[in-house]
Amino acid sequence: MILLGSKNDAAVGKKAVDMLRQFGISNEVVVASAHRSPSRVTRLVSQSDAEVFIAMAGLSAALPGAVAAATVKPVIGVPISGKLNLDCILSIVQMPGGIPVAAVGLDRADNAALLAVQILSLKDKHLMEKLAKYRRDMEDSVEKDSQEVSKDVQS
Amino acid sequence: MILLGSKNDAAVGKKAVDMLRQFGISNEVVVASAHRSPSRVTRLVSQSDAEVFIAMAGLSAALPGAVAAATVKPVIGVPISGKLNLDCILSIVQMPGGIPVAAVGLDRADNAALLAVQILSLKDKHLMEKLAKYRRDMEDSVEKDSQEVSKDVQS
Amino acid sequence: MILLGSKNDAAVGKKAVDMLRQFGISNEVVVASAHRSPSRVTRLVSQSDAEVFIAMAGLSAALPGAVAAATVKPVIGVPISGKLNLDCILSIVQMPGGIPVAAVGLDRADNAALLAVQILSLKDKHLMEKLAKYRRDMEDSVEKDSQEVSKDVQS
Amino acid sequence: MILLGSKNDAAVGKKAVDMLRQFGISNEVVVASAHRSPSRVTRLVSQSDAEVFIAMAGLSAALPGAVAAATVKPVIGVPISGKLNLDCILSIVQMPGGIPVAAVGLDRADNAALLAVQILSLKDKHLMEKLAKYRRDMEDSVEKDSQEVSKDVQS
Amino acid sequence: MILLGSKNDAAVGKKAVDMLRQFGISNEVVVASAHRSPSRVTRLVSQSDAEVFIAMAGLSAALPGAVAAATVKPVIGVPISGKLNLDCILSIVQMPGGIPVAAVGLDRADNAALLAVQILSLKDKHLMEKLAKYRRDMEDSVEKDSQEVSKDVQS
Amino acid sequence: MILLGSKNDAAVGKKAVDMLRQFGISNEVVVASAHRSPSRVTRLVSQSDAEVFIAMAGLSAALPGAVAAATVKPVIGVPISGKLNLDCILSIVQMPGGIPVAAVGLDRADNAALLAVQILSLKDKHLMEKLAKYRRDMEDSVEKDSQEVSKDVQS
Amino acid sequence: MILLGSKNDAAVGKKAVDMLRQFGISNEVVVASAHRSPSRVTRLVSQSDAEVFIAMAGLSAALPGAVAAATVKPVIGVPISGKLNLDCILSIVQMPGGIPVAAVGLDRADNAALLAVQILSLKDKHLMEKLAKYRRDMEDSVEKDSQEVSKDVQS
Amino acid sequence: MILLGSKNDAAVGKKAVDMLRQFGISNEVVVASAHRSPSRVTRLVSQSDAEVFIAMAGLSAALPGAVAAATVKPVIGVPISGKLNLDCILSIVQMPGGIPVAAVGLDRADNAALLAVQILSLKDKHLMEKLAKYRRDMEDSVEKDSQEVSKDVQS
Repeated sequence: MILLGSKNDAAVGKKAVDMLRQFGISNEVVVASAHRSPSRVTRLVSQSDAEVFIAMAGLSAALPGAVAAATVKPVIGVPISGKLNLDCILSIVQMPGGIPVAAVGLDRADNAALLAVQILSLKDKHLMEKLAKYRRDMEDSVEKDSQEVSKDVQS
Repeated sequence: MILLGSKNDAAVGKKAVDMLRQFGISNEVVVASAHRSPSRVTRLVSQSDAEVFIAMAGLSAALPGAVAAATVKPVIGVPISGKLNLDCILSIVQMPGGIPVAAVGLDRADNAALLAVQILSLKDKHLMEKLAKYRRDMEDSVEKDSQEVSKDVQS
Repeated sequence: MILLGSKNDAAVGKKAVDMLRQFGISNEVVVASAHRSPSRVTRLVSQSDAEVFIAMAGLSAALPGAVAAATVKPVIGVPISGKLNLDCILSIVQMPGGIPVAAVGLDRADNAALLAVQILSLKDKHLMEKLAKYRRDMEDSVEKDSQEVSKDVQS
Repeated sequence: MILLGSKNDAAVGKKAVDMLRQFGISNEVVVASAHRSPSRVTRLVSQSDAEVFIAMAGLSAALPGAVAAATVKPVIGVPISGKLNLDCILSIVQMPGGIPVAAVGLDRADNAALLAVQILSLKDKHLMEKLAKYRRDMEDSVEKDSQEVSKDVQS
Repeated sequence: MILLGSKNDAAVGKKAVDMLRQFGISNEVVVASAHRSPSRVTRLVSQSDAEVFIAMAGLSAALPGAVAAATVKPVIGVPISGKLNLDCILSIVQMPGGIPVAAVGLDRADNAALLAVQILSLKDKHLMEKLAKYRRDMEDSVEKDSQEVSKDVQS
Repeated sequence: MILLGSKNDAAVGKKAVDMLRQFGISNEVVVASAHRSPSRVTRLVSQSDAEVFIAMAGLSAALPGAVAAATVKPVIGVPISGKLNLDCILSIVQMPGGIPVAAVGLDRADNAALLAVQILSLKDKHLMEKLAKYRRDMEDSVEKDSQEVSKDVQS
Repeated sequence: MILLGSKNDAAVGKKAVDMLRQFGISNEVVVASAHRSPSRVTRLVSQSDAEVFIAMAGLSAALPGAVAAATVKPVIGVPISGKLNLDCILSIVQMPGGIPVAAVGLDRADNAALLAVQILSLKDKHLMEKLAKYRRDMEDSVEKDSQEVSKDVQS
Repeated sequence: MILLGSKNDAAVGKKAVDMLRQFGISNEVVVASAHRSPSRVTRLVSQSDAEVFIAMAGLSAALPGAVAAATVKPVIGVPISGKLNLDCILSIVQMPGGIPVAAVGLDRADNAALLAVQILSLKDKHLMEKLAKYRRDMEDSVEKDSQEVSKDVQS
């Protein structure tokens, strides 16, 4: 389940949806604010049978922590860039002992989705093979990029 | 009502209690973590008939925001110092639109209490007079400090 | 009373005016700089019969503190974004003991106004009901946003 | 598998070991530096049959990323506090697209271990029950802390 | 005139007094808070016949700006170190247009005093000669330090 | 004398020139880099009969310090904004003991010029009267701004 | 050898290529990510007979460190600007003991190339003469810039 | 040649001396401040026949840049830790175009020395072999550390 702190985070959220889809994983996207609709967050999370949660938010970014407080399943937090950036990063990373959140980089919804796939792949060999292929493709594309850049820069 | 995110925050919390007592205001101090006991926070806040809430927390400091989400009464947030300090300050200050928290300075539980007294004094003339006297006393003590320092530094 | 440190802050100031108006609260907006017109700040604040003050400023942002020094009524400070942002946030949050300022987030004049309404509602039941309704409406809009985003992102 | 960037990180590493042990999970602790022994990192990780990796490092903290580059299994990164703290936090959080690391808070090896348990519990119901109990115990301890603090602070 | 925001700043303030004395400049040290005793600041500054003002403060550090608002004579601001340090530095440096403050480094009351001497020396040749001598002595002491360190480090 | 670290700083430098001109002070503007032309800096400064130096630079911003090292007259440093901003601010503010620089705010060449005028006015009564008038005009313009904003915001 | 962490860094990389070419130094540009293609980095570096390596990367910027881990030849690291900037700067500067990286400024590929030329010139007198000439030309251009700016600003 | 900005930096400086000695490289250590003795810096550097310069300084840390301005040989800069740390790091890293400094980590005089050895080894095969051995020893010590930590942590 993918939770966005605000509808303004939809563009970043889409990066997670697209990545998950690429791995054949169905998912649900909801808007649910830790501050404006806290009981909705708790309800959605506790009633969900999702195995991994991805929560995105900017500013004081309490959403990932609120999701983590409502489940013992893994929760991945994505800080959404704004005027300060250090605010949401630190709000998501600096969780207190006992309630972990897995923080990824600023606007890195793609990595949040990949991390979710990695977690899910621990009990799905097929998924792990897809991950391995994704990794190899990425390595190949680095090589292609290299040839392209090499030509451009030298000319 | 004074809420501490952890029992480690008790020393700072005591500064608020002492200040409130100085103004003759009774109060209740509880430990309640936004992450480790979220439903307890909601329950305590929604059942309380307190008029102002003071919430203190370090690190990602979600407690003031969680309290603010559970009441429409004024909520004052106190960041508690730790290894970074910018984490709790920004987590408390950078609340999203719609759910305000009144942030005071790092470890400034005394100011949180004074701000609560200022708010309560709007319907209690006696309290406002006490505040005015507190302010005058403070001004006087600046003058005394000045004479003391003046001597010390010059010698 | 809403005090702006400079006429450049008018756009942010308007967010506070609009929010207060939504709650039926009349208010006065003035420009008054802690540095360029300090006696004006003191005079306006001490002569005002406003119950809550909202002061906005960027850079070294001394205005909220100057207002707080001139009254024992609650003062809310709004940092205005610029090239650094940490400057005005820290200048407003890190007030010394004895003179509290209630800091809200960067450019969050809307939250400053809401906090003022929360404070005023302590002696105005009607206002508190409006706040409760505002909160419920906000919760509802989260749900609507969710449906909208859910469709958009999945397509 | 728990990887420490330096033997100086052993004290923080022990917090992860203790937490995993509490959940009955065996584990291996190694020192392996991304910079001083990069091939060792790659060898240890690629030969390991661990399902989750926890990597801890201070300063430029490349270890979690190096581990993540050597496996498609989930990797949790723990920044170790030093003179700056922002260096290791940002080095671990700000991973590029394609290679996720799950960052936890500064010195939060306990949360890294808990996150690992959460991930492993997705295919181990018994573990998930233990997690749920751990969570309930934590909630209970908050209540006990509250009573204790309440007495201390009021006296 | 040297103004301290609090008596806790006396130790740093003494560094300014000692430096000024070394140049034979008499001076007055007062405690006067921009927030706790604003009218005192204005009164002391506007009644003083000092030619240069040195103001020191920590936290939101409004004192130098308040002094600068009360005089058109040069004002030097000294940020006093605390838990954050960026707060007082930025509060003093980031003054708005029209009201300059001359900021020196964290706890650098010695440099504030030297800067004051430099300013005063523009109309006092004797003072400027003393400054030139001070500078030469400093250069000489660097050479002595060098010989000392060279021996120590090599052994 | 106004020194720019690079010709890219000319636009900010012009703000200082304009302000000085407003006070009838003639001045010379030169480009002279502490790193690319260090001997030029020393030569220009030591041969100049200017009474106050204003030096502007971005990035590591060594120019104000280099100027201060070459004269015992007052030196004002202006940090020029770029990608980081904290770099030039801290480079200019954090001078070591013995060599003061008077730092003003980011891109605040106007304040640097005003500070220079304040320093020069200590031996020029006419200039000090102009400064007092400038201050009063500024106060008046605040009042005018206030009326304008008040109308705009309320409508 | 110039290594780019991503093809997005090509524009900055070109600045290094152009500078090296100006000094008649042939060079090779490759894309090679520390995270997406770690073995490629190791292979390219260990098989290269380059004498100096320049590695550029943004975000957590592990590339310069990975290159340094694969060779005992000098490695220069260039942080590439993005949303935070402090992330890549600190990731490159804060290397652990034993594996040095020579960090240059944000996007300063030109300086990275110059530093490489300086290193190579230690065994190539002709190159050192070119460097001395480059330095003199730079000094001359400062003088020309000065005359140009002086005219523009004064008019 | 090793240049210290102040005799207080001697302890960090000694780490560089010890490392160089380990590689059989003679060296000279001097104190020379960019601000307090600028001509001394220029004289020492321009008269020295050293092939690599290491300069260490805290605060605004202009020394490495001043050394770089006085030579076309490679200059390595070491930021020395203090109250802020970001000040000296950014002052040394953020050099303008044309005058590179090779920045290493906070207090990392050991890495500065190693980098110098790497540079010198480009024309001294024996030195490069020593470096390769140093690297292998370091790898071995990681393995030993690992065994030690593994035992300690598990017990």
